[in-house]
Amino acid sequence: MKPSAFMFEPIGIIHSSLKELEDVPMQGDEGAPEAWLELTPMAAPGLMGIEAGDELLLLTWLHLAQRDVLQVHPRGDINRPLTGVFATRSPDRPNPVGLHHVSVLEVTGGNLRVAPLEAIDGTPIVDIKPVLSSSEQ
Amino acid sequence: MKPSAFMFEPIGIIHSSLKELEDVPMQGDEGAPEAWLELTPMAAPGLMGIEAGDELLLLTWLHLAQRDVLQVHPRGDINRPLTGVFATRSPDRPNPVGLHHVSVLEVTGGNLRVAPLEAIDGTPIVDIKPVLSSSEQ
Repeated sequence: MKPSAFMFEPIGIIHSSLKELEDVPMQGDEGAPEAWLELTPMAAPGLMGIEAGDELLLLTWLHLAQRDVLQVHPRGDINRPLTGVFATRSPDRPNPVGLHHVSVLEVTGGNLRVAPLEAIDGTPIVDIKPVLSSSEQ
Repeated sequence: MKPSAFMFEPIGIIHSSLKELEDVPMQGDEGAPEAWLELTPMAAPGLMGIEAGDELLLLTWLHLAQRDVLQVHPRGDINRPLTGVFATRSPDRPNPVGLHHVSVLEVTGGNLRVAPLEAIDGTPIVDIKPVLSSSEQ
């Protein structure tokens, strides 16, 4: 196996009232606020068909994460045993892709207002997908 | 907004009996087979704590996708209206990250046997996360 490197450009960026990492809840259902997703002019046509009320999976690039971390104490609790990052939702991991289940509140051109979103202002957006009704969410 | 480019190296690769794109079901619950995930020696310590029976979300890089596609007919059905790729699960999209809900069948060192997996042999692995019990899956 010889994995090669891949490159991507964000399809947009998050605008949020969360400005500091210490303000960001660990999960969206732990008090995260709403946020605006601003898509690039190039990516915006990919939003066609998305409406207020839709449920989406938002994939982000957690650009402030530590990428050399492979094992953590879950939720930063040193009383919990050291665990591989792939068995946790720690943002620190080799490829720090964030996965967020959000509801669409408003669509305005290339911008979506969504909630809840536990990602800091300025976080790049990698992809957006619809939530499927099955367990494949 | 000036998005910059990001780079990642796969944490591993998929070994599957699915060798041709036309054999790949559109979703895992549509008859996809089991597969082996081979992690790189560097990433393998991140598996610590994952056991047979666990439910995981596997993020892949759908390396054969067309990245210049922004609108599609869902499931390739031209009777369905043209739709933005972010409102569909089309593999064709600017950043073709695949999202797969799999069950762990076996863990052997840096390798996981999982099912079902609708990804072709040789697909790079971006990340692995546990399924949370809430709707955030």
